[in-house]
Amino acid sequence: MKSLIPGLATALALAVPAMAQDDPLPSWNDGDTKSAIIAFVQGVIDENGDTYVDASDRIATFDNDGTLWVEHPTYAQLAFALDRIRAMAADHPEWKTTQPFQAVLENDMDALAAAGEKGLLEIVAASHSGMSTDDFEQITLDWLASAKHPRFDRPYTELVYQPMLELIDYLQDNDFQTYIVSGGGIEFMRPWTEAVYNIPPQQVVGSSITTEYRLVDGEPALMRTDKIAFIDDKAGKPVGINTHIGRRPIAAFGNSDGDFEMLEYTTSAVDGPSLGAFVHHTDADREYAYDRDAPIGALDKGLDAAGGNGWLLIDMKTDWKTIFPE
Amino acid sequence: MKSLIPGLATALALAVPAMAQDDPLPSWNDGDTKSAIIAFVQGVIDENGDTYVDASDRIATFDNDGTLWVEHPTYAQLAFALDRIRAMAADHPEWKTTQPFQAVLENDMDALAAAGEKGLLEIVAASHSGMSTDDFEQITLDWLASAKHPRFDRPYTELVYQPMLELIDYLQDNDFQTYIVSGGGIEFMRPWTEAVYNIPPQQVVGSSITTEYRLVDGEPALMRTDKIAFIDDKAGKPVGINTHIGRRPIAAFGNSDGDFEMLEYTTSAVDGPSLGAFVHHTDADREYAYDRDAPIGALDKGLDAAGGNGWLLIDMKTDWKTIFPE
Repeated sequence: MKSLIPGLATALALAVPAMAQDDPLPSWNDGDTKSAIIAFVQGVIDENGDTYVDASDRIATFDNDGTLWVEHPTYAQLAFALDRIRAMAADHPEWKTTQPFQAVLENDMDALAAAGEKGLLEIVAASHSGMSTDDFEQITLDWLASAKHPRFDRPYTELVYQPMLELIDYLQDNDFQTYIVSGGGIEFMRPWTEAVYNIPPQQVVGSSITTEYRLVDGEPALMRTDKIAFIDDKAGKPVGINTHIGRRPIAAFGNSDGDFEMLEYTTSAVDGPSLGAFVHHTDADREYAYDRDAPIGALDKGLDAAGGNGWLLIDMKTDWKTIFPE
Repeated sequence: MKSLIPGLATALALAVPAMAQDDPLPSWNDGDTKSAIIAFVQGVIDENGDTYVDASDRIATFDNDGTLWVEHPTYAQLAFALDRIRAMAADHPEWKTTQPFQAVLENDMDALAAAGEKGLLEIVAASHSGMSTDDFEQITLDWLASAKHPRFDRPYTELVYQPMLELIDYLQDNDFQTYIVSGGGIEFMRPWTEAVYNIPPQQVVGSSITTEYRLVDGEPALMRTDKIAFIDDKAGKPVGINTHIGRRPIAAFGNSDGDFEMLEYTTSAVDGPSLGAFVHHTDADREYAYDRDAPIGALDKGLDAAGGNGWLLIDMKTDWKTIFPE
């Protein structure tokens, strides 16, 4: 009967937290927001209740920038792109006199802004393409290991929101499948999301460029082209969710109007429980305060619609005890 | 101590098959092919061995048509498209005199063949677009519930290969994540793969058309357009794998040259164990016999390369005791 011993140990291990009634969200202040989240989860897992949902349908989606980690003063991926243009400049002497690259090299943010979306796409194309996916993964990891946030002077991967990490854990503990659904690049996120969020690559949805399969020196490689394949933002988020998951989420968390359609798609299900929530950046002291007029991460239409749609507004200042992990 | 009882029951349940040393692949004849598959899996899970692979990297991919279910005399999805054209014809009187639709309605296979790939795309566009993804799911399920294979007179979902179902089970029991990676339509497969293969929608990769998010009568819907988004075949398979999984598989199963690049991508990893295999259709009595010259599912380049690349050829006639489930 030797094989019973692991069974006993497992049962004991499982029994302890259940008896202790641990707070699943210790970095959240007690209040309506925390109560609403816990009530939703408890309703979904209560097999005898009206709001029970099978584990296979417990899909929760999270935006990344501004929902799971800091997005001000600018997206980490944009900082990455600009750093990479600077690093590549020695091989591109023509960039000294060609916009938008000249603006990056001269730190001329006005000229960069003047280059608009077209300029931004040129910067993304130049900095994000022409290498294999394996090489891009290494480039991303190298950058994250050395880059620091201008205000907090910490690596970007440490500037994740502790309360949201607890929320991901709590959902996973209750058999939710947790996905990232971000406007950011899918291959910029996948190298580190498992270590930082416990979300593996196959549960990351994002914007992408086209890759081409090729043998390079006899070895298979996926080469990154400069052609945009998919933009996972706004009405693109339900499309990305359908492509990658094939099921409608029952919970969605965002922080900007870019997440509006994801929340709408998630919470307008014909039947069954659902939860939509925006992280509202209200804490200029500990992080940032912005919403309607923000150049990055604007929450305007969503702020107006939240009440009528039953979406939670997570108030960073009052709902969260701490912002970042120790 | 009430909570110990489920633990005990689980331990007992787990102990029984382990003691019985059940054959994990009972529909496979003993021989080199079966031994090679079992040796691969046992090597991957042996924590003390040189070929151990972490569970998170145990990704196995399966082609669908001809690898998991019958693809002759034609793809199930093509039979579906033709049936749908016939069902829609009353609303399209112009089809009576317009190719390639006229060919379908008159069962004129020569004229259909003459319409070529362009004609086929017109048929797919007309039969697969213009509805929501939810409606398409229902259309697919309705068709599968009524359509029967012309030779075997059974629903297509019963014409799956019993030995491959056992292989999927065996891999899942050993903590492999099993994915379908098919040239077929992703939304044609997802409605039924969980019931038939125990593979959920999010683990299905396939060809796709573009969808658009829209509110229809105030409810969110993803509308299927007639624009092809992605062809998940040949060199597209590694691309689709990278898009959806973000990790290189360690095992890949196919049956035609359309799977060549998937096997190449899977088995040319720099280090670690890997397994590539083709189902070789050698059994005209119980199923079909075809390879190099087949109009559907040709295996030519793959047949030549298998030996040199160490890929298994699964001989349907000699390796499989049974073909279909009872």
